[in-house]
Amino acid sequence: MDFTNILRVDCRDEPGLIYKITGVLYHHGLNIVRNDEFVDRAHQHFFFRAEVAPQRAEPPQAEKVVAGLWGLLPHGANIQFTDRQPKRLVILATKEHHCLSDLLLRHEFGELNAQVLAVVSNHATLGPLVAKFGLPFHYLPHEGLERAAHEAQLLACLEPYQPDYVVLAKYMRVLSPELMARFPHRMVNIHHSFLPAFVGANPYRQAFERGVKIIGATAHFVNEHLDEGPIIGQDVVRVDHSKTATEMAQAGRDVEKIVLAKALKLVCEDRIFVIGNKTVIFE
Amino acid sequence: MDFTNILRVDCRDEPGLIYKITGVLYHHGLNIVRNDEFVDRAHQHFFFRAEVAPQRAEPPQAEKVVAGLWGLLPHGANIQFTDRQPKRLVILATKEHHCLSDLLLRHEFGELNAQVLAVVSNHATLGPLVAKFGLPFHYLPHEGLERAAHEAQLLACLEPYQPDYVVLAKYMRVLSPELMARFPHRMVNIHHSFLPAFVGANPYRQAFERGVKIIGATAHFVNEHLDEGPIIGQDVVRVDHSKTATEMAQAGRDVEKIVLAKALKLVCEDRIFVIGNKTVIFE
Amino acid sequence: MDFTNILRVDCRDEPGLIYKITGVLYHHGLNIVRNDEFVDRAHQHFFFRAEVAPQRAEPPQAEKVVAGLWGLLPHGANIQFTDRQPKRLVILATKEHHCLSDLLLRHEFGELNAQVLAVVSNHATLGPLVAKFGLPFHYLPHEGLERAAHEAQLLACLEPYQPDYVVLAKYMRVLSPELMARFPHRMVNIHHSFLPAFVGANPYRQAFERGVKIIGATAHFVNEHLDEGPIIGQDVVRVDHSKTATEMAQAGRDVEKIVLAKALKLVCEDRIFVIGNKTVIFE
Amino acid sequence: MDFTNILRVDCRDEPGLIYKITGVLYHHGLNIVRNDEFVDRAHQHFFFRAEVAPQRAEPPQAEKVVAGLWGLLPHGANIQFTDRQPKRLVILATKEHHCLSDLLLRHEFGELNAQVLAVVSNHATLGPLVAKFGLPFHYLPHEGLERAAHEAQLLACLEPYQPDYVVLAKYMRVLSPELMARFPHRMVNIHHSFLPAFVGANPYRQAFERGVKIIGATAHFVNEHLDEGPIIGQDVVRVDHSKTATEMAQAGRDVEKIVLAKALKLVCEDRIFVIGNKTVIFE
Repeated sequence: MDFTNILRVDCRDEPGLIYKITGVLYHHGLNIVRNDEFVDRAHQHFFFRAEVAPQRAEPPQAEKVVAGLWGLLPHGANIQFTDRQPKRLVILATKEHHCLSDLLLRHEFGELNAQVLAVVSNHATLGPLVAKFGLPFHYLPHEGLERAAHEAQLLACLEPYQPDYVVLAKYMRVLSPELMARFPHRMVNIHHSFLPAFVGANPYRQAFERGVKIIGATAHFVNEHLDEGPIIGQDVVRVDHSKTATEMAQAGRDVEKIVLAKALKLVCEDRIFVIGNKTVIFE
Repeated sequence: MDFTNILRVDCRDEPGLIYKITGVLYHHGLNIVRNDEFVDRAHQHFFFRAEVAPQRAEPPQAEKVVAGLWGLLPHGANIQFTDRQPKRLVILATKEHHCLSDLLLRHEFGELNAQVLAVVSNHATLGPLVAKFGLPFHYLPHEGLERAAHEAQLLACLEPYQPDYVVLAKYMRVLSPELMARFPHRMVNIHHSFLPAFVGANPYRQAFERGVKIIGATAHFVNEHLDEGPIIGQDVVRVDHSKTATEMAQAGRDVEKIVLAKALKLVCEDRIFVIGNKTVIFE
Repeated sequence: MDFTNILRVDCRDEPGLIYKITGVLYHHGLNIVRNDEFVDRAHQHFFFRAEVAPQRAEPPQAEKVVAGLWGLLPHGANIQFTDRQPKRLVILATKEHHCLSDLLLRHEFGELNAQVLAVVSNHATLGPLVAKFGLPFHYLPHEGLERAAHEAQLLACLEPYQPDYVVLAKYMRVLSPELMARFPHRMVNIHHSFLPAFVGANPYRQAFERGVKIIGATAHFVNEHLDEGPIIGQDVVRVDHSKTATEMAQAGRDVEKIVLAKALKLVCEDRIFVIGNKTVIFE
Repeated sequence: MDFTNILRVDCRDEPGLIYKITGVLYHHGLNIVRNDEFVDRAHQHFFFRAEVAPQRAEPPQAEKVVAGLWGLLPHGANIQFTDRQPKRLVILATKEHHCLSDLLLRHEFGELNAQVLAVVSNHATLGPLVAKFGLPFHYLPHEGLERAAHEAQLLACLEPYQPDYVVLAKYMRVLSPELMARFPHRMVNIHHSFLPAFVGANPYRQAFERGVKIIGATAHFVNEHLDEGPIIGQDVVRVDHSKTATEMAQAGRDVEKIVLAKALKLVCEDRIFVIGNKTVIFE
């Protein structure tokens, strides 16, 4: 961790952008520890991320850097110059522990650049697990409630935490487009299949019925369409005819938890840009 | 290759099947070099494959082995006791060479348990490649022909070869259900995606548009529904945002050729059973 | 879990073994739910494992089954007919939590066929983690002790637990051949490299220095030679020039914990045979 | 292929390098289609590669670009500004065809950015294969010759071709340090193991004896020490106890040919820098 700030820029592509941006950094005495850039040809859009460190002891003057860039970059550019504050997370789960517990452990041992503020669930099952880690657990049962009423409770529960990101760690309730729209590109889901195969419920049963030889998991940002948001990461594991649907689900869980944790790490390190329904990731 | 015959049995499951089958082999002086079995619980169906070698010099009496099994196994049992004759193959291709050329090379160097009899294509492109390997090349253009008329020519071309299997090595024409029904579980296709994702045409374009992080290929038996036959093998390769649809297709080609060759090897070694829309594979 | 007992046999290979074994099972009214066998040609050794269930309600008579096999199999055969008792485990760790915590979670949620009896460490670091799960934690510092003295304490600590297996979950002390000999094929280690590459200490530093493009982890039984026991499982992850040795170690940790957990599951389900320095695994 | 030139720079790291380089490109009317850079912290060394295209129709003035950079970059900088000429290759092989034939096919269909000039072998076996592709085949038997004498013939054979790179496509003769020193970072080898495991001869036999669960292949630049040059690419495939050493070798061949072809593509597209014994690869 030999850098102090991250500069993120995305804008319409045009000649000379890297020259201009690195010039501003250079003139403010900021060393580029690492930078990445990418031009999406289809959208003629430019993406840039740099980890920077001041050459001298004094902290960088964020406002001046951004102002210096502002005048040079195309109209409509997005510019972020941030320090490395841990992201604020709230995790939603249902009954399955594997993704939640993996995140809680990484959090406990400081392996995510994040602060887990609370866990919310529509079941009481995972309360004792969360208690082990000394975190607030909110049990919001959905039985007997209209979806809108349940989601209103959920929003009321989330609101005081002011999370940067909401993590759906095997949260098995379908969310309304309205709720999802409240967290644009700020809600991360783990889908228990290799999207776009097996969209929807019970993908391991679907995979079993189809007789596939590989199953997978997909971490993605949530958008207003179920399972169709920008994909962050995917991984797979081999299966064969001898595996039941239950055994496929067991094998899938190990993939799910690693894929979600890796995706969340990328999110919390500000490595992801979203364009349309796709991601640009500087790993 | 220290065995001479393969016994394949599949039938309704019941107690004692392995005992009965291995007893017949034992009493006919046949050593089991390797055997595999599997019970599909959902269908209560039993699958068995053994590689056997005679303990004495004389060849096994196939009829007696089969007759001995016949009386012991449940009604409707499928029993095959075969020697290791190379399978007879005809390959269909269009313009892309990578799958075809990989198979031609493996054939040339005796790495498939198969004899490639001919290559058929709806384009002339691959003729020179096939000529290098001294095999018949049939150019059957489809332009200006109804599908039925073109398929009639295709069938007439295939007929004299009496192939055990027809291999679709990137044959880019949709076949009619009628034609496919002529080769039940005897037509092997390579689909350029990780089925069931991206069924149909131009899957790499679809994968690019969807922003997936992994692409794959699927070898499968053809049934009457496009891309929905029993899956034989699948494999994947990682991609990222920097890859164009064209580059994804390039990366996919290496996966396609290996997946098809491996699947065909399993087919030609009599290692695959089909049940419903799924395969049982004894690798 | 539709079976009640596991029969494991290994012996010198000879004709008719499967016939004889399945005959005994058949005559004792035991259905074979699943069975696997393998002949190691180099050693002319036969391996057999079957999951069996009684056809009738009464429990199988283990002694009679074993006695029935005893008379039929070659001299020196190993025969085990066991019920599905959870294995008794003690876990050794040092300071790193990732393997230990993954096992504790799987244990907590009943995902291993095992009972974790205690955790032993030469550091106090992981005590609070173990306490969360309500398990005994034994802190046995090695500072100021001869190796023999420390190992005597360790053995004294292990002894009352009578563990079936000892798990080295990133236990970073080299054990003496004498201690290892106390647990023949009963001590499972996770080595943080793709053995046999990078034997010994600090493999991620070695991998970094060598500039490899893939790193891995290996679970193995411990024998008297460091890192040379029979391999149970391995997996890998891609890295590139941009990764530091520290980042390689981070990436490796996710592989290590999954590889160890999978290996331990195979061990606890009696799926592994050892022959010489190799394993035969019926997955 | 929407770029015309590649600029490669590597030099001692210092602040402002990207700014200076991109400034020169900008002022010469060169658009950066794609660029990558990396700083090796351990060596304080900077690597930069850009694909550039002129904004106007006239071709870029290579000398002026390089001269412009020369004055700005640290002493000792390496600067290359090249057009996209196919690399000149000579391939060395022995008896195994799989790597050679895969390269010949890719070459035949224009998939490598390279021109294969000739194939040289110490056996006659592969002559007919090479003849199919209309390329010169030089048979240089080593029997009855001292190594120095054989290598003198080899050098005399290579010399007129003036190859940019020599590809060892399963060339099974150990080369002398003197010969290897003639092609510094210009000789690419495929090693049939997952280096650094199983250095030396017969790695599949070694892998079989060790009982590994994954085998792999490694493409690397040759240096004066056998199998220890900078690694370009690696890949793996799973195996299990049922595989013989021969079957492991068969499985390994598919990995070898893909790994070598991918590595060679990276080489021929000028994507690789070497520092010490490691590579920096901009994929």
